[in-house]
Amino acid sequence: MKKIAVDAMGGDFAPQSVVEGVEKARNKYPDLRFMLFGDEQKIREILTSDKNIEIIQTTEVIDMNDEPVKAIRRKKDSSLVRAAYAVKEGKADALFSCGNTGALLAAGLLIVGRIKGITRPGLLSTLPVLTKEGGAFNLLDSGANADNKPEQLYQYALLGKYYAESVRNIKNPRIGLLNNGTEPHKGSKLTLEAHNLIAADSSINFVGNVESKDILKGVCDVVVADGFTGNAVLKAIEGTAGTAMHLLKDTIMSAGLLGKIGGLLLKPSIMKIRNKMSASQYGGAVLLGAKAPVVKAHGASDAETVYYTVKQINDMLENDMLSKFTDYFNKNV
Amino acid sequence: MKKIAVDAMGGDFAPQSVVEGVEKARNKYPDLRFMLFGDEQKIREILTSDKNIEIIQTTEVIDMNDEPVKAIRRKKDSSLVRAAYAVKEGKADALFSCGNTGALLAAGLLIVGRIKGITRPGLLSTLPVLTKEGGAFNLLDSGANADNKPEQLYQYALLGKYYAESVRNIKNPRIGLLNNGTEPHKGSKLTLEAHNLIAADSSINFVGNVESKDILKGVCDVVVADGFTGNAVLKAIEGTAGTAMHLLKDTIMSAGLLGKIGGLLLKPSIMKIRNKMSASQYGGAVLLGAKAPVVKAHGASDAETVYYTVKQINDMLENDMLSKFTDYFNKNV
Repeated sequence: MKKIAVDAMGGDFAPQSVVEGVEKARNKYPDLRFMLFGDEQKIREILTSDKNIEIIQTTEVIDMNDEPVKAIRRKKDSSLVRAAYAVKEGKADALFSCGNTGALLAAGLLIVGRIKGITRPGLLSTLPVLTKEGGAFNLLDSGANADNKPEQLYQYALLGKYYAESVRNIKNPRIGLLNNGTEPHKGSKLTLEAHNLIAADSSINFVGNVESKDILKGVCDVVVADGFTGNAVLKAIEGTAGTAMHLLKDTIMSAGLLGKIGGLLLKPSIMKIRNKMSASQYGGAVLLGAKAPVVKAHGASDAETVYYTVKQINDMLENDMLSKFTDYFNKNV
Repeated sequence: MKKIAVDAMGGDFAPQSVVEGVEKARNKYPDLRFMLFGDEQKIREILTSDKNIEIIQTTEVIDMNDEPVKAIRRKKDSSLVRAAYAVKEGKADALFSCGNTGALLAAGLLIVGRIKGITRPGLLSTLPVLTKEGGAFNLLDSGANADNKPEQLYQYALLGKYYAESVRNIKNPRIGLLNNGTEPHKGSKLTLEAHNLIAADSSINFVGNVESKDILKGVCDVVVADGFTGNAVLKAIEGTAGTAMHLLKDTIMSAGLLGKIGGLLLKPSIMKIRNKMSASQYGGAVLLGAKAPVVKAHGASDAETVYYTVKQINDMLENDMLSKFTDYFNKNV
C-alpha cells in the first residue's frame, strides 16, 4: 500500500482539477492512498468521497510568483511544504504538485532530500515521438540545473535508464547524449567528457550523440542533457509546436469560405495532431535523484492530466524504482 | 562595385541551383560582380550569360562527409578553399557557399581570418517570427562554437546589433539573451556574467533574458546565445516545425475521403504556413566576426534561396557592415 502526498492547491485550476484527477485515480488504483494538503473546505466542496483520501488542512499557498527557495523557507504551512515534509517523515512515498516548478524542485532537494551519491538531481520530462503512434522519449535534465558537470550527465544516463525500465517497461532502453553533432569527436568540453563516461559503462545501451532535430523522431528512449540546454530544447519544442498549431488555426480562420470548410472537414485530424503534441497523457516531470518520486504536472493540468500523472507515480512505486536507484548508487559511488 | 566569391560546387543541387541563383541576382544587382569557383565545363552548361561573372576553374570539391579542418588544409584546389583565398587576397569582398558548413566555418576562420579583437566569431541565423507577417529574428551564435565565454556573448550582442541595423534596417534593434528564465537573477554562470556585461553597455537596446519558447513570437530582434545552446535550439525549432508539417500531411492522407477533401481545400493555407516556416527567403547563415561576410546557405538550397542569400550579402556590402565592426572593435578592444 503506497501513499502519495498531493499539493492540492498548486496549479491554475487547483484544487478542482487536482481533486477530480485524484478521485479518478483512486477509483482506478484501489491500493493507492492519498494525502491531500490544502484548504479543507475548498477540497470538500469538490470531493465526492473520501475513500482512501485523507485531507490535511493547510493555510498557505505558494503561487507562481513566489521566489522558490524563499517560499519553501517562509511558507511553512503551505500545501507544498507540508506535503514535502510528509514524504521526508516517511508518512508518504511520493510528492506531487501542479504548482510552482522551482518551489517543487527546491522542496524536493531541500526537504525530501537527495539519494546519497547523486550530487545534482535532474528533471526528467516525457515528450512525444511524433512519427510513431504512442511513441515517447525522456529528456533529462530538462531544467533542474543551470550548470552541470560530466559526472552528473553520466548519472542522468543511469537514472534515465532505470526510469525507462521501471515506468515505461523498456528493456535495455537506448540512451543518447544531446550534442551539436552525432560524430563521437564532436561536442563541448562537457559533452565530450560525458560521452566518454557513458560509453565506458557497458550496462548502458548508449547510442551515442543525438541532435535536437532528431529526438522527436525517436532516435533514442532517453536523451541526456545538461539542465541549461535540456531546458532550452524542451521550451523550443513546446514553443514551436504551440506556435505552429496557433498558426494553423489562424490560417484556417482567415482562409475564406472554402478554407473554413476544409478546416471543418479536417478538424478530427487536427485534433488528433493536437492530442499527439499535447503533454497530458505523457504524465509529469520527475525530479530523479531525490529520495522519493517528486513529480510536477503542468500548471494548466486538467483532471485527466492529474490522473495520468498519478498513474505514472504508481508505476514508479509499484516497480520500486527508488530501491533500484539507491542500491546502485550506494554500491557504486 | 563589390565582388562575391562563390563556391559553385557546394550544396545538394550544385552547380545548377548556385549558377541559376547567381544569374538571377546578377540581373537584379548590376553593381555586383561574381567569381564562380568550380568545374568550368559544368558551370558553362548551365550559365546563360557571363556578364559580370568570372569563372575560375578548380579541380577539387569538399563534400558533406569531409572532416572540415582537414579538408581545408588538404584540398587546396577545392572550389571553397580557392574562393576563400580570393577573399583573403582582396580579390573579392565576400565568401558564399551552400556546401559543408564546418568547412566553410573553418575557411572563414583560418583563411579569411578574424577581425582584430573578436576572439570567437559566431554564426548568425535568421528565423521567422511565426506570429507576425514577414517577421524575423536572428540567433547568434547558432553553432560556430561548442564552448563560449561571457565576453564572447557580449561581442555577439554587438555584432548582432550592427547586423540588424545594416541588413535588416532595424533602428536600435532589441537584443535578448537566451536563458532558462526571464528574471535577471536566473541563469547559468555563463549567462549571468554575460547578462551583466550586455546590460552595462548603454549602446545596446537590451531587453534582458528571453526563453526559447518565446523567440518565435518575436520578443526580440536578435537572440544572443552560446554556440552549443544556440545550435540545439535552432535544430529543435527546425526539427519540430519539419516533423509537425510531415505529421499534418500524413494525417490528411490517412483521414478518409472527407479529410482528403478538407486537405485539398486547405492546401493554399497550408502552403502559406510551409512558406512561412521555410528558410529560403530569410537568406543564409553569416559568420560574424570574420574579416569579410562569410555566408552559408542551406545544402538543399534552390536557385531562389541562392538569390535571396546574394541579396543579403549585397545588403551587408552596401551598408559597409564590416567597417562598422572593425571601427568599433579597433576602438574598444
